[in-house]
Amino acid sequence: MRLATLRDGTKDGKLVAISPDGKRYAVPPLQTMQEALERWSETMAQLAAIDEFPEALDQVELAAPLPRAWQWLDGSAFQSHGDLMSAVLGVEESTSQAPLMYQGTSDKFYGPRDDVKFPDEALGIDFEGEFGVIVDAVPMGTSAEDAMGHIRLVVQINDWSLRALAGPEMKTGFGWIQAKPPCGMAPFAITPDELGGNWRNGRVCLNLNVDWNGQRFGAANGEPMGHGFHELVAHAARTRDLVPGTVIGSGTVSNANFREIGSSCIAERRGIELIDEGAARTAFMKFGDTVRMQAVDEHGHAPFGAIEQKVVKA
Amino acid sequence: MRLATLRDGTKDGKLVAISPDGKRYAVPPLQTMQEALERWSETMAQLAAIDEFPEALDQVELAAPLPRAWQWLDGSAFQSHGDLMSAVLGVEESTSQAPLMYQGTSDKFYGPRDDVKFPDEALGIDFEGEFGVIVDAVPMGTSAEDAMGHIRLVVQINDWSLRALAGPEMKTGFGWIQAKPPCGMAPFAITPDELGGNWRNGRVCLNLNVDWNGQRFGAANGEPMGHGFHELVAHAARTRDLVPGTVIGSGTVSNANFREIGSSCIAERRGIELIDEGAARTAFMKFGDTVRMQAVDEHGHAPFGAIEQKVVKA
Repeated sequence: MRLATLRDGTKDGKLVAISPDGKRYAVPPLQTMQEALERWSETMAQLAAIDEFPEALDQVELAAPLPRAWQWLDGSAFQSHGDLMSAVLGVEESTSQAPLMYQGTSDKFYGPRDDVKFPDEALGIDFEGEFGVIVDAVPMGTSAEDAMGHIRLVVQINDWSLRALAGPEMKTGFGWIQAKPPCGMAPFAITPDELGGNWRNGRVCLNLNVDWNGQRFGAANGEPMGHGFHELVAHAARTRDLVPGTVIGSGTVSNANFREIGSSCIAERRGIELIDEGAARTAFMKFGDTVRMQAVDEHGHAPFGAIEQKVVKA
Repeated sequence: MRLATLRDGTKDGKLVAISPDGKRYAVPPLQTMQEALERWSETMAQLAAIDEFPEALDQVELAAPLPRAWQWLDGSAFQSHGDLMSAVLGVEESTSQAPLMYQGTSDKFYGPRDDVKFPDEALGIDFEGEFGVIVDAVPMGTSAEDAMGHIRLVVQINDWSLRALAGPEMKTGFGWIQAKPPCGMAPFAITPDELGGNWRNGRVCLNLNVDWNGQRFGAANGEPMGHGFHELVAHAARTRDLVPGTVIGSGTVSNANFREIGSSCIAERRGIELIDEGAARTAFMKFGDTVRMQAVDEHGHAPFGAIEQKVVKA
């Protein structure tokens, strides 16, 4: 099942069910994605029963599938990303065996084709291609095994980052505020079964194709997460209940063979340059630059649709 | 003007206006605090015009004045708190001149008399007495000077903390997730003018009386913040718009003469013991322990009412 949210002038938009080919939609008897998640055991059956999609979908009408959430907790579950970021930010890499996780702003997720505004190019504007999951109510103390059943939807995320601010904020130990403005989301939130065999061990085992200004920049696969999403959910729920609609991110999708397949963020490429050539030479994004992100399976099918965003001056 | 939220079975509760003596309330033609904040220029006048309070207030019916918020950003603006926490957590103190700030869970604020559940005493259960402000919509890039006018309400907060988890999470650079479960809020959110001359330079210049199991533990004053609330708001809004209802915290209220006036959290006392005696001897909270927090002015008036919470096993 694939779900999306149409802009309708409200903050939460209008939930719609998407046809298998991604080109049409049906209007279910539910207003919002949040409402669906709060009563999932009941609403899932309602939504899954839809098999006619009478309306043609215009992608520019789409908001993020969840336009705002009560909580966004982003992991950093790919080891090769952590290695490169430590090099590029000049910070010591965490030796913790526990999942790495920060809480980011969740009162807005940009729609898949929204322009993204930043105050200044000098802040080091960067994209981060990620996968994420959306849970229903997860009680405090839920085990990783049980957490798997609370993963109701899978999403694709662009975690916008301002690198000039990231290192200094990280050194405070308090995590990121200014370095992490709102994220973008791909058009469709999907149930894990939509991924078929590519949903394995709590991982989205798809290549995430990332194009910067129309040029392929990376095609890392989501499989080599050091912790699966179910483990990230359990980590988040150790000392708090998670409310329905909490979004948990994978961190930047990254593979150890980054020299061959590229990266899902610019900072990683700069880390590789620093290691290989002694200095980072790839500049961050300029106003007017675009990024496109689309996860694809072995048949070229893109279950989440594509994020296509342009950076603009605030 | 003093506002509160009554429990009514909904997630956001029912907004009420509180009488000057704190004992009665009126029901305004507005459902929730969030709704009031989203249209503040209009709703403030409506609420301020109320001068009859027909209903008797039973404090046990009170939720947090804002029972959930889209964003909770907590500073650490008291230098003496930072000094002691570095000692007790074994982390290097930040040398940043910018405000310190992390994003915490905001999908729930405990009501002023709610029991607070934790999984394990061994996690180092601690209270943190703080002040906070609630803003209306703050556009990205708002200056500290302009931010002052966006501070619509002032609140008193208990930022529950799990100290055994705080140091390790801080060392990752990602900030706190497990170490920071939901906070509690005192009964009344007040407009800054309610503080009269004790609202100075974006600071709440009141003593925060903190009692642990009925014994006075601290009475630090809110004046010596290194950055005022308007500066914390501007810091938060540097690269993001703040939505109405965003809550910004001061961090633990702490004064340099902590040996005389005590502390607003147990970890600080442990820091003092570590410095003075070579080892921390005061244990953290046990299940069944209580904490009471009440800011008072020079006449003994408590504009926020009192937080009275008990720690229980989850």
